[in-house]
Amino acid sequence: MSNPNSPLDSATGKAVTAEPGSVGIVVPQRARFSEPLALACGRTLEDYELVYETYGALNASKSNAILICHALSGNHHAAGYHSESDRRPGWWDHYIGPGKPIDTDRFFVVSLNNLGGCDGSTGPASADPRTGKPWGPDFPSLRVRDWVNSQARLADLLGIGQWAAVIGGSLGGMQVMRWALMYPHRLRHAVVIASAMKLTAQNIAFNETARQAITSDPDFCDGRYLEQGTLPRKGLALARMIGHITYLSDDVMGQKFGRELRRGDFHKGDEVEFQIQSYLRYQGENFSGRFDPNTYILMTKALDYFDLARDFGDDPVAAFRNAQCRFLVVSFTTDWRFAPERSRELVDALVHANVPVSYAEIESDMGHDAFLLPNARYERLFASYMKGVAD
Amino acid sequence: MSNPNSPLDSATGKAVTAEPGSVGIVVPQRARFSEPLALACGRTLEDYELVYETYGALNASKSNAILICHALSGNHHAAGYHSESDRRPGWWDHYIGPGKPIDTDRFFVVSLNNLGGCDGSTGPASADPRTGKPWGPDFPSLRVRDWVNSQARLADLLGIGQWAAVIGGSLGGMQVMRWALMYPHRLRHAVVIASAMKLTAQNIAFNETARQAITSDPDFCDGRYLEQGTLPRKGLALARMIGHITYLSDDVMGQKFGRELRRGDFHKGDEVEFQIQSYLRYQGENFSGRFDPNTYILMTKALDYFDLARDFGDDPVAAFRNAQCRFLVVSFTTDWRFAPERSRELVDALVHANVPVSYAEIESDMGHDAFLLPNARYERLFASYMKGVAD
Repeated sequence: MSNPNSPLDSATGKAVTAEPGSVGIVVPQRARFSEPLALACGRTLEDYELVYETYGALNASKSNAILICHALSGNHHAAGYHSESDRRPGWWDHYIGPGKPIDTDRFFVVSLNNLGGCDGSTGPASADPRTGKPWGPDFPSLRVRDWVNSQARLADLLGIGQWAAVIGGSLGGMQVMRWALMYPHRLRHAVVIASAMKLTAQNIAFNETARQAITSDPDFCDGRYLEQGTLPRKGLALARMIGHITYLSDDVMGQKFGRELRRGDFHKGDEVEFQIQSYLRYQGENFSGRFDPNTYILMTKALDYFDLARDFGDDPVAAFRNAQCRFLVVSFTTDWRFAPERSRELVDALVHANVPVSYAEIESDMGHDAFLLPNARYERLFASYMKGVAD
Repeated sequence: MSNPNSPLDSATGKAVTAEPGSVGIVVPQRARFSEPLALACGRTLEDYELVYETYGALNASKSNAILICHALSGNHHAAGYHSESDRRPGWWDHYIGPGKPIDTDRFFVVSLNNLGGCDGSTGPASADPRTGKPWGPDFPSLRVRDWVNSQARLADLLGIGQWAAVIGGSLGGMQVMRWALMYPHRLRHAVVIASAMKLTAQNIAFNETARQAITSDPDFCDGRYLEQGTLPRKGLALARMIGHITYLSDDVMGQKFGRELRRGDFHKGDEVEFQIQSYLRYQGENFSGRFDPNTYILMTKALDYFDLARDFGDDPVAAFRNAQCRFLVVSFTTDWRFAPERSRELVDALVHANVPVSYAEIESDMGHDAFLLPNARYERLFASYMKGVAD
């Protein structure tokens, strides 16, 4: 396997020097899986590809591997840059790199684009081998457990028998919990951040409005927009706007935007536009240019359907009796979509199942997005726990 | 003026007997105003109609009149029934009637459909006298102060020099506050329920997504759907769904729906549908059949633009120094769109402005909708305050 941390610059032939704390330039890799994958929905994927990145080096005993599981709109590009001119690092760059909490001087970090995604792994925008046309709405419905199975195969391919830790926030945290139940001997630590054992009705309701926004757009064409040469941009933008509001806290929106105006003047009787309106529209439009609507639907359904204890008589304690790893659970005070209460329920279940668990509720005014953002206490705690994982 | 409390049954010619506690069958009335109304946006409405209902009898000294101000999707039909076969009473029937907190044995209650509404008063669906076509998007943008001015003219028409109380929840509460500043001598009591002196950025953001949902629907036709013979039903339904989620609390949605399934079976790998999904869709579709999309846009903008203290150097204490009435302010513990904190800010301003104020924060798990719903403590408190208004 090539080491993506020190690629040669194509022009000079010299190794690219990374900035301190950064994994530098990374090259996504691609793995093809030809063994059919039986899915929770009863269907089977005959073969599929997963795109992934790795940071750091796997040690001789293969004991230092970390799996990063992404959330709703994430992908494999969690750290570093894709070129010298790339100004936007991976989505978790603040937490992955040399000397960072997920320390690439110690760990070999694997980050993939989940099956059903839209950043290179097989998903609704890929060609259905039976027809040669995009899968679109015919792509199988996926559950969190399907992702875990596909990730286990990626681990097999990389020769990783046991992860030092599986780590994820939000929907990623659900994958981490499922790993602990499905492959209890294949991870030593589970880090579950800003997540829940199941969504509340309110969360499902927000996801439902997001899906309705997409499917109500006439350019959605029943999911066959790629074949039709259209794209439900407005619907996807609206779905993202709804999501974006709920990932932030009321406080931080007040601090960032308050009632600041972008245009117009109240005293002149103008129609005015608040800063928050144009910000949200920008976020929505930007997202709709880069994300696949069918993937958005697939991911939100996986979120809604996840219910950790359903197969254990709705008893999460019974579910976790099988777990063999240690847990770190983290929540954020102003996160109202994955509220601290949801994390405390998880911790309670773990404690009653005699699973070792550390829990931290981090003060933050950033809402659900806090798990992605700089925060001194979160960083210290995360780094400290990960040092224990390495030892 | 006719007494709408004892109409004659058209078939039998006998007076309809009201059920105890109900105002019985009411007949909406219509008033035409021909004096031009100058609006905050700088435009003028040459003439307009307001539809209203009244409950109870005006006393000889005309001192017992109460004005009800409605919220975003409300109208003039606050209490009673429109026919013998009508099974759905007015929107605040629980609180208006003989022996109820707004006791029609004591008070003469006036409830109107606001200007710009879609239930009979002049609004975007009315004919623009200049063209004979529906106003649509050309209907003037309205502010809360315009409603207060139009309500003052209705008071003039009814011979009411001073309201015993002006009462409203949510957007209605904003009208109450503005009454106290604009016509300080024309009300003795102001009852502001589940409201705020201005919206937060989060609230504006939710309103913005609702408007985007409507305007993104191709059947919106830039607001000229009536002329085009279309209706942006999907967009309005989606807007209502977004609103509906945010008017309820996470708790009550959990209690009412939890993760109950409407169809499908997880164990069979089916696509499932949660109860909350079909409930929301029903709410959205039902609403989109009865409400005008342009009115929804107009009302949400009035909400966003309302900023009680803007004309007073952003100092609400300065704003309220002019007020002459007493205030009752009520909030509900789980209301997260008009949180108790917003009511406490109002109370603080009133206290510092030496305006007499009573404040109650009511325990409720019903979110913002609590102001419309039965609640024993709210009823007792409301009734007790209103008894003081009558004395």
